[in-house]
Amino acid sequence: MNLKIILHKPQMGENIGAAARIMHNFGYADLRIVSPRDGWPNEKAQAMAAGGEKIVENAQVFENLKDAISDLNFLVATSAELRSMEKPICTPEQAVKIVREKRKVGFLFGCERTGLTNEELAMADLIIQIPTHEQYRSINLAQAVCIVCYEFSKMLLRPMPKNEISEQATKEELENMIIHLEGDLDSSGFFKNEDMRDSMKLNLRNMFTRAALTSQEVQTMRGVIKSLSS
Amino acid sequence: MNLKIILHKPQMGENIGAAARIMHNFGYADLRIVSPRDGWPNEKAQAMAAGGEKIVENAQVFENLKDAISDLNFLVATSAELRSMEKPICTPEQAVKIVREKRKVGFLFGCERTGLTNEELAMADLIIQIPTHEQYRSINLAQAVCIVCYEFSKMLLRPMPKNEISEQATKEELENMIIHLEGDLDSSGFFKNEDMRDSMKLNLRNMFTRAALTSQEVQTMRGVIKSLSS
Repeated sequence: MNLKIILHKPQMGENIGAAARIMHNFGYADLRIVSPRDGWPNEKAQAMAAGGEKIVENAQVFENLKDAISDLNFLVATSAELRSMEKPICTPEQAVKIVREKRKVGFLFGCERTGLTNEELAMADLIIQIPTHEQYRSINLAQAVCIVCYEFSKMLLRPMPKNEISEQATKEELENMIIHLEGDLDSSGFFKNEDMRDSMKLNLRNMFTRAALTSQEVQTMRGVIKSLSS
Repeated sequence: MNLKIILHKPQMGENIGAAARIMHNFGYADLRIVSPRDGWPNEKAQAMAAGGEKIVENAQVFENLKDAISDLNFLVATSAELRSMEKPICTPEQAVKIVREKRKVGFLFGCERTGLTNEELAMADLIIQIPTHEQYRSINLAQAVCIVCYEFSKMLLRPMPKNEISEQATKEELENMIIHLEGDLDSSGFFKNEDMRDSMKLNLRNMFTRAALTSQEVQTMRGVIKSLSS
């Protein structure tokens, strides 16, 4: 699903560049900019893009919001403040679930200083508010873009690559290691207190079971026990 | 729940400031910085904090990672690259569910250029990878902090019943146990092969970190080491 990011009257080129960078990180490329304060192109945007240079280069620039969203089917606006608007407000996570059924979806972000006006919010189908601390709502523009891209990526259920953790040792291997350890601890007088003997053994077994050792690690531990005992 | 953010060898003051700003947005204040490239204090960090100035001002600065995490019970590290480590890897969302039961939790972020080394990752209980496009994994440092803070805040919106588990040992307790073990292994000639010495130590650290030992269990293990070595 191709997410469209629309920045409305962004002030700082650095933020445009940082937004492009995080879009690139999550594999999105459709950036639209409405009436950027410092004109276009913007060198600072390029400088901050770090991988997303092409996104900055190919960004579509519009004079007004209506033109920027004309081809979209569904528009989600971000707002730091709750206003008395007859419009559904939800979290980014909820929004992403709602828009997954829609065809061409855009997320709209207001300018750094003032956000979106009521008139601009009125153009959106849905408003999202990021669940910040309620007294410190003013998030950096590129951070807000980051959270939307991140939630979108999660929705796509991109399977996470797994770390190749080796097969856990067999219970027999683990058991033999524990027998080895207990034997050496017996010889060294570890279980001085007969009453505690069984519970100590249980504790040791719990620890080493929880560690989920691989076969190789069981061998290493046996080397450790042998070396310490010698 | 008080989230601790640890930046390891951050290079750019701007990123430290941006991280403090987003922490402030989500209501977190405990920032720790290990060996910042440009020294400390850093004017650029202050300039970018936009509301999080106090967080920058009160940031604790450490010379090494061990000191920065010594009082924590659980450490989550972020990594852009998957390495062959015997350690669980999960998404930020999964990590947040795991750490909600823990007491003092830190999230560790590596430096901008190189991230965290295998030695640094080995100190963590858990590794998270942000679900970016698999070819463009290098997220801006403050954006990575943003995603972790955001997921944490979401969790707080959905309180869940807690499970009664014993507290995990502090990193200092674990570290002292590892030093004890390595010392005794040195004396007993365990590290015969100098080439393998570091990787063996890394393996041992990974095993014992993964076991998530309690303070009591760390004491038991030290008893085991002492008894076997005597």
